[in-house]
Amino acid sequence: MKDKTMRGAPAPLDAARAVPDDPGRRKFLRTATATATGMLAAGSGLAAQAQNAGHDAHAGHGTTPPSPAGAPAHGWQGGQGSMMYMEGHDMHGVVSEPPGAPPDDAVNYREFEMTFDVIEHEILPGVKAPMFAFNGQVPGPVFRVQENDWIKVVVRNRTEEMHTIHWHGVDLIYTMDGVPMMTQDPVHPEETFIYRFQARPHGTRFYHCHWGTPLHFMAGLHGAFIIDSPNDPIRRDFPYERDYVLVLEAFDVNFAREHMNAVHEGMKRVNALMRQGRLTPRTHAFFRNYEEFVKAMDDGWRPPYTRGNAELPTVQPRFFAINGKAFPATKEQGHIKIRRGENIRIRLINGGIATHHMHLHGHQFYVVAEDGNPLPYYKRCNTIAVTPGKTFDIVVHGDNPGLWDFHDHNELQSTNNMIYPGGMMTMLEYEDLGEVPYGPSISINQ
Amino acid sequence: MKDKTMRGAPAPLDAARAVPDDPGRRKFLRTATATATGMLAAGSGLAAQAQNAGHDAHAGHGTTPPSPAGAPAHGWQGGQGSMMYMEGHDMHGVVSEPPGAPPDDAVNYREFEMTFDVIEHEILPGVKAPMFAFNGQVPGPVFRVQENDWIKVVVRNRTEEMHTIHWHGVDLIYTMDGVPMMTQDPVHPEETFIYRFQARPHGTRFYHCHWGTPLHFMAGLHGAFIIDSPNDPIRRDFPYERDYVLVLEAFDVNFAREHMNAVHEGMKRVNALMRQGRLTPRTHAFFRNYEEFVKAMDDGWRPPYTRGNAELPTVQPRFFAINGKAFPATKEQGHIKIRRGENIRIRLINGGIATHHMHLHGHQFYVVAEDGNPLPYYKRCNTIAVTPGKTFDIVVHGDNPGLWDFHDHNELQSTNNMIYPGGMMTMLEYEDLGEVPYGPSISINQ
Amino acid sequence: MKDKTMRGAPAPLDAARAVPDDPGRRKFLRTATATATGMLAAGSGLAAQAQNAGHDAHAGHGTTPPSPAGAPAHGWQGGQGSMMYMEGHDMHGVVSEPPGAPPDDAVNYREFEMTFDVIEHEILPGVKAPMFAFNGQVPGPVFRVQENDWIKVVVRNRTEEMHTIHWHGVDLIYTMDGVPMMTQDPVHPEETFIYRFQARPHGTRFYHCHWGTPLHFMAGLHGAFIIDSPNDPIRRDFPYERDYVLVLEAFDVNFAREHMNAVHEGMKRVNALMRQGRLTPRTHAFFRNYEEFVKAMDDGWRPPYTRGNAELPTVQPRFFAINGKAFPATKEQGHIKIRRGENIRIRLINGGIATHHMHLHGHQFYVVAEDGNPLPYYKRCNTIAVTPGKTFDIVVHGDNPGLWDFHDHNELQSTNNMIYPGGMMTMLEYEDLGEVPYGPSISINQ
Repeated sequence: MKDKTMRGAPAPLDAARAVPDDPGRRKFLRTATATATGMLAAGSGLAAQAQNAGHDAHAGHGTTPPSPAGAPAHGWQGGQGSMMYMEGHDMHGVVSEPPGAPPDDAVNYREFEMTFDVIEHEILPGVKAPMFAFNGQVPGPVFRVQENDWIKVVVRNRTEEMHTIHWHGVDLIYTMDGVPMMTQDPVHPEETFIYRFQARPHGTRFYHCHWGTPLHFMAGLHGAFIIDSPNDPIRRDFPYERDYVLVLEAFDVNFAREHMNAVHEGMKRVNALMRQGRLTPRTHAFFRNYEEFVKAMDDGWRPPYTRGNAELPTVQPRFFAINGKAFPATKEQGHIKIRRGENIRIRLINGGIATHHMHLHGHQFYVVAEDGNPLPYYKRCNTIAVTPGKTFDIVVHGDNPGLWDFHDHNELQSTNNMIYPGGMMTMLEYEDLGEVPYGPSISINQ
Repeated sequence: MKDKTMRGAPAPLDAARAVPDDPGRRKFLRTATATATGMLAAGSGLAAQAQNAGHDAHAGHGTTPPSPAGAPAHGWQGGQGSMMYMEGHDMHGVVSEPPGAPPDDAVNYREFEMTFDVIEHEILPGVKAPMFAFNGQVPGPVFRVQENDWIKVVVRNRTEEMHTIHWHGVDLIYTMDGVPMMTQDPVHPEETFIYRFQARPHGTRFYHCHWGTPLHFMAGLHGAFIIDSPNDPIRRDFPYERDYVLVLEAFDVNFAREHMNAVHEGMKRVNALMRQGRLTPRTHAFFRNYEEFVKAMDDGWRPPYTRGNAELPTVQPRFFAINGKAFPATKEQGHIKIRRGENIRIRLINGGIATHHMHLHGHQFYVVAEDGNPLPYYKRCNTIAVTPGKTFDIVVHGDNPGLWDFHDHNELQSTNNMIYPGGMMTMLEYEDLGEVPYGPSISINQ
Repeated sequence: MKDKTMRGAPAPLDAARAVPDDPGRRKFLRTATATATGMLAAGSGLAAQAQNAGHDAHAGHGTTPPSPAGAPAHGWQGGQGSMMYMEGHDMHGVVSEPPGAPPDDAVNYREFEMTFDVIEHEILPGVKAPMFAFNGQVPGPVFRVQENDWIKVVVRNRTEEMHTIHWHGVDLIYTMDGVPMMTQDPVHPEETFIYRFQARPHGTRFYHCHWGTPLHFMAGLHGAFIIDSPNDPIRRDFPYERDYVLVLEAFDVNFAREHMNAVHEGMKRVNALMRQGRLTPRTHAFFRNYEEFVKAMDDGWRPPYTRGNAELPTVQPRFFAINGKAFPATKEQGHIKIRRGENIRIRLINGGIATHHMHLHGHQFYVVAEDGNPLPYYKRCNTIAVTPGKTFDIVVHGDNPGLWDFHDHNELQSTNNMIYPGGMMTMLEYEDLGEVPYGPSISINQ
C-alpha cells in the first residue's frame, strides 16, 4: 500500500532573498542548493516528492530489489559490523534491508518514501541556515498511523554524508532501531535503506537521525511520529477533534554551518580513501570491537577526543522554533485555534537538545501523556518543561476566551539571536472571540 | 477597598557603601538613585509607599479619572494596536484601563497600588546592582488574597522605560493579561495602568513584567501572588499554620547593568523621536501586523536579530538569591522555622530563567502542588527541580529536629560569583532544638 | 561488626600511559601519584584497602580512641564552631566524633572504613584526570545496607585538603549530616572522623563530600548508598533479582585540575599560617556568625566573591560518565544484562551538576521511585531527566529482545570532548538474544 498520509509544513526555499556572504559557507551552500533544486524540481507538493523519490529508488536500482526476508544479496552483512565501505565498495545504489521483519507479502505494509536532503531553511524572515532535512523540510513530515500498523519506510540518502533513522519511543524490532554501528551500518550517500516495523505502542513519538546525532538531529533531521488507537484513554476522557503537533527546536546555525562544512570536507576525504580501498579503521576511527580500539591506542593511535578544547566546537543555540519557524514567523503556520467549550490536544515533541518550558497564559491545562504514554493521573499545569528526548501531550479546555501567549518561559529562548520577543512563541486563539479591543501587533525589539 | 496586605522584605538602600566606579554604570545609577530617593522619601514602610504612589497618581492626573468600564477617553484604543505613542502623543500622565472587567461599583474590588521603579539592590554585603523593582523592592511585595476576590491594581511607571504586569497562572480576563502588543500597549514612562481581575484559581502564583522579559523579569520585576481558599485540600490534608514564600532568583548583574544602560539610551532616542512625531514602525521595530513586517523586510529593512553574534549580549547569572538575598545574607530574612510535629508549607516560585534544584537535608518532604494547583497524588522527595515558569508547593513535617541545609543542588548556583558557599542556600531550623553542640558558623570561601 | 560489603568498580591506575605535559598539572600530580601509590600498595582489592585504612587509623592514633558517646577529649567542640584549627592546633591524628548517636556498645553497628584520597582516574583510554576519590575509586564504593541498620563510618583524610561526607537523602541525626561550619568542622588532612547513624528510609540514596562542593562533589567524591527493605513495594510489584546502580557524572577535567592546584596552593598557605598560629577568620574567610562577617566588611575586608568575573573560573563539563567511565569504555563494566520476561531494576543517581536525560531504546520502562522513595503511581516512560541532586529508580521488563542503546538524550553529553559518540552511553543487552545479525562495533568520530 502506497501511502499519501505524510503531512507537514513544507520548508519554502526563496532563492531571491540572499544570505550574507561567507566564503566557507557559500561553498557548502552551492552543494546544498544543487541538491535541493534537483529534488524540488520533481514536484512542489510533498506527496509528489515522495513519489518521485520512490520512482528514483526503484528505477535506478532495479537490479537490487528488496529481498522479502533475511539478508539481501548485498547491503546487509552479518557479524561484527559490515564495514563493507572500508573494503572499497562504492555504496552508490545499494539497497539495505535488515532482517527480522515479515516479508512484503506476509503483512499489509503501509509504505512511506523518504529522503535525506540538504536544504537551506528559513527560520524567519532574514535568517536562513543550511540544514539536513527529511523530504526537503524541517521538521520532517508528520506520520499519522494506527497502532499495530505495519510500516515500511524506504529512505534514500541524497546528501554526501551518512545518516540513519531512529524511531524514538517505538518498541520495534531491534534491527530496525537505526543506531549505527550497533544495529546497522549508516546509510551511505546514494544508498537506500528499508525500515520495516509495527507501530506500537500508541502515542506521540518521533523519529530522527542517529548518526552524528548532536549535529544531524539538531540541524533538521527530526519529525513527529503519531500512533493513534481507538483505545486511547485520552480521547475517551477528553473528547476532542483537533490536535496539534508542535516540534520544539533549538538551532545553533553557526555550529551547524561550520560543522557541516567540516564534516562535508572530511566525508570527501573518506569517500576518496574508500574508492582507493585505503580506508582503514584508524582513518575513520571505526573499530570492529572495543578490544581493537584499545589495541590501536596501545599502538600509538590518538582518538580525536584527546585534542585540546580550543579546537573543539561549542554549541550555543541562538534560534528557537516551533515546527521550523521562530516568532513572529510562527504566524505563518497559523495560531493554535480553539472554541469555547472545546478540548484540543497539543502534542509537544522536543526536537533538539535544550529544555523548553512551555507556558500557556490564562489556562490550567491537563498533562495527559508523557513519552507518548497516557499518564495514570492527569495533573493541571500552566507550564511544562519539555526536556530533551521527551514528548508531552496536554489537553486545553476552552474555558477562557481570548488571545493567549504560549511560549518558552526560559525567556532567553523566546528571543531571536537574543533579541526579544522571538523564538519559541506562538498564540492560542479563540475562533469565537468576537470583536477584539486590542488585536495583536508585533514588536521584534522590546 | 484600599488594601494594606502587601508584604515583603524591603530592599534596603545603603548610600554609604560605595559600588566600584564604572563610568557607563554611574550615569545610569544617577538616574536610578534619583528615582529611588524620590520614592523612598515618601515613607519608609511599604504601605506608606503604596499610599503615596496612589496619591500621586490621583492628584497629578485628576483630569483623567479611571472610567468605570469600556474604553476611557484616552489610554485605550481599539483595533490593531494603538501605537498612539508613535503618533506624537506624550504619554505622561495617561491612565489606561483595558475593557472587559466589571466597573468599580459593580464588585467589591480590593485595590492595590504599585509602582515600577529603578533601585540599587544589595544582593549580599559587597554586591549591589541596579535593578527594576515593584514598589522599590526585589522581589516585589507578596500578594495574599482569597479566591474569587476582585483585584484592582493601579500601577504607575516611575522609570524611563516601558513595562507591563503579567499575572502568571491566574485565569483572568485576557485583556488584563499584560502581554504587550498582544493585549495592551506597554505602560509608558509616567503613565498609569489599571488591571482589574478576579483572583482564581487558588494556589501559589506570581506576577512579573512581560516587556523586554529576559531583562525585566530577571532584573527584579517579579513577585509572589498567593491565592488562598477555604477549599484548599492541602490545608485539609496537612493542617499547618505557617507558610513560607521563597522566590528563587538568578541574577546576571553585568548583563543587567549593560543592557539597562543600552535600553535606557535607546529609550531616550525613542522618546525624542516620539515627541517630534518622527517615530515610525521601522524606527522601533514595531508593526501593526505580520504582513507589515514582511513588507518592511522586502523594502530592505533589516531586523535587529540579523546582527552578528559578536555584538549581542549573552546571559550568565553569577548570583543566585532567595527573596532577593544570597547566602550568607539569606540569614537577614531569618531561617525557615519549624517545631517538632509541625507541618509547614513552603511555596517555591521561580523568579528567573535558571532551574533550581532545591534539596532539603534530613527530610522527605511532600510535593503537594505544581503551578499552584494541588496534585492528584502527593509524592515524597528531598530535592525538587523548580524549572523556569513553575511554582511548587512542598510540605515539611517536623520529624527530625536539627539545623538543616536547604539549597540548590546545582552546586554552581550555591555560589556567589563562583565562590562556594553562597547563592541559593538557607536553613531549616527547629525552634525547639535545645542546646546545639555545633552551631552554624560561616565560611564564604571553601 | 566489620563489614566487607563495600563494592564498586575499582578505578584502575595505569602509570605506563602518560598524560600530556603541563607544568602546573605535573606538580599536583606528583602529590596525587604519591598518595595513590601509597594507598594502592596496601592491597589491590577494595576490602583490603578498607582494612588497611582502618589499621592505619587505629595504629597511628591509638591514643585517641573514639569515645563511646558525647564529646570526646578533643576533636569535637561545642558552641559556635570549634575553629580549633585557627587556634594553632595541628589536626594531624585527631579523631572527631559528633555527639548524638548511641555508643558503640548500645547498638550493633555495621562498621565501614573509608578514606579521602587523590588519584588519577582514567575516564576512557587517552583521558586521565586528577580526582578526589573515596577509597581510591571514582565513584566511591556502593553501600548496600538494610533499613534501620546502624552504620558507623570511620573516614580518614589522606589528602592535603578538607572534606566531609554528606549522606544525601538519609534522615539521620543532624550532627552526622556532614555540612561543614553548620554541623561539624571539616575533616582536616590526616584527621579521622566518625559518622554514626541509622540507615533510613529505604531506597536509592547517595553520599558525597560537602566541602567546596562544586569541585569536590563533581571531581570524584560521590557514591551510591542503597538501603534495602523487605517492605519495599517495588520488589513486591516487580519481582526482580538483578539491580544495577548507575552513577551519572559530568566532569570538567580542566576546571578540576586548575581548581585543585589553586586550592592545593591555598591550603598549604593555610596550613603554614595555622602552624604559626597566625590563621584568622579573615585570612580564611571564616566567621563565627553573620554579624562577625558583616563587621569585617565594615572594617574594609573584601570577600572573595567581589573579585571581577575575569579572574573567576567557569565550569563546562566536556566528559560524561557512568560509574566513572565514558563510552566506549562503559564496555569495561559490562553492559546492563536482561533476559526475556525478566524484570531488572536500574538505580540512576546524579553524581554531578548537569541534568542527564537517560533514554532507553525499544522499551517503555516503569518509573518506580524518585529520590529513593517509591512513587504512589508508576508511570511508563522511555526517557527520564535525572536532574542534579536526584535519584530515580526504573524497572525494565524484558519484552523486546535485542541490543539497545541507553544514553543521555542531550546529545552533547553523549560525546567525549564534543566528539560523538561517547560520554553517557551504554547498552541494554539481552543475554538470550541468540545470533546477532549485526553486532555492535565502535565508531568514536561520527
